[in-house]
Amino acid sequence: MNFSEAMVGRLATYRRTMRRWQQLGRMRAFSHEIAAELHLTAAQVRRDLMQAGCTGSPAKGYEVASLLDRFGELLDPPEGDGIVLIGVGHLGKALLAYLGRRHPQLVIRLALDSDPHKCEHHIGGVPVHPIDELESRLATQSLSIGILAVPPEHAQSITDRLVRAGIRAIVNFAPTALRVPPEVFVEDVDIAASLEKTAFYAHRKTACTEESR
Amino acid sequence: MNFSEAMVGRLATYRRTMRRWQQLGRMRAFSHEIAAELHLTAAQVRRDLMQAGCTGSPAKGYEVASLLDRFGELLDPPEGDGIVLIGVGHLGKALLAYLGRRHPQLVIRLALDSDPHKCEHHIGGVPVHPIDELESRLATQSLSIGILAVPPEHAQSITDRLVRAGIRAIVNFAPTALRVPPEVFVEDVDIAASLEKTAFYAHRKTACTEESR
Repeated sequence: MNFSEAMVGRLATYRRTMRRWQQLGRMRAFSHEIAAELHLTAAQVRRDLMQAGCTGSPAKGYEVASLLDRFGELLDPPEGDGIVLIGVGHLGKALLAYLGRRHPQLVIRLALDSDPHKCEHHIGGVPVHPIDELESRLATQSLSIGILAVPPEHAQSITDRLVRAGIRAIVNFAPTALRVPPEVFVEDVDIAASLEKTAFYAHRKTACTEESR
Repeated sequence: MNFSEAMVGRLATYRRTMRRWQQLGRMRAFSHEIAAELHLTAAQVRRDLMQAGCTGSPAKGYEVASLLDRFGELLDPPEGDGIVLIGVGHLGKALLAYLGRRHPQLVIRLALDSDPHKCEHHIGGVPVHPIDELESRLATQSLSIGILAVPPEHAQSITDRLVRAGIRAIVNFAPTALRVPPEVFVEDVDIAASLEKTAFYAHRKTACTEESR
């Protein structure tokens, strides 16, 4: 099962859609319905689901509950695993609030911050400790995922410490490219680049529309 | 100048890198240096910069200040344009703090929220008004970019209102696929999918390493 990054991302969005449909009481889903919802082709959805080991039928589609079971097997970390969050600013707090509410499988078990005023208390049920304790805290807790929500100038040095402490995958919100060993996965969420790209297209598309008048 | 979305994203990261190098006092940059910093190939960097109309020389590289001028011409919205932020929760506040500090070209000029307690005051210098005033406020301000930081169940209806009010491009943080007319650009920042993907690779890469022992 060597899935591409793009496919793993799509499986996560399929899961979210199926969860919502299940809440709405839907039992079955056709590939063309999923495709329409997510702006994909039905062929793409069928190919992904086949590769993920999901079975459906042309006449009846896929069973929503079976899809969700399979997505959980593929995507969820093992029981007891968890996330360490570095940086409890506005973004860190937004992530704590978001994950606490919506993702029972993705649990932030520890938060670290360099600001002593934020430390030694809980935010959204998660204990916040000084960044100095990164090594000692990670030595006693089984966490394999790190979320980096720190200023760019601290991102690489904290990444080096996370990797030495056994973190295997990092979501990086700092606008900087991290250097990690090949066995460590990094997912960059580059909000600034997304905004600049959007600003570019706001005026690019306007210009195109005007030209075609 | 029909740039691909991927290329526009790379131009934004080139610009960020060049800004940092300029702050460090560097006057010139070689494509292979930029490539090493951003985990790209030098050929890719040269191709992008050529397409963007930047000129350099094999012997002397590119002038950092000229690159920054050109990136500004390409990426920055026209003077006086601005952003409307919908949703002033933790994520909205994180965006206000981030953009206020770092992006003089990308200015949030208006924030809207459904919570009356947040309205009628300023957060980070930006006025917050009730979401009911979306149409009247946008009728009097020239804003072309929207940032959507609202729960998914409200995302589509607010998008429809933004589009009718003249918004041309949207950064969507809500975990849902938006329907927009073809002339409107949407950039999805899907934090939940990024986290699930990262969780997948945390254990996938571990498993691969174990298998290869």
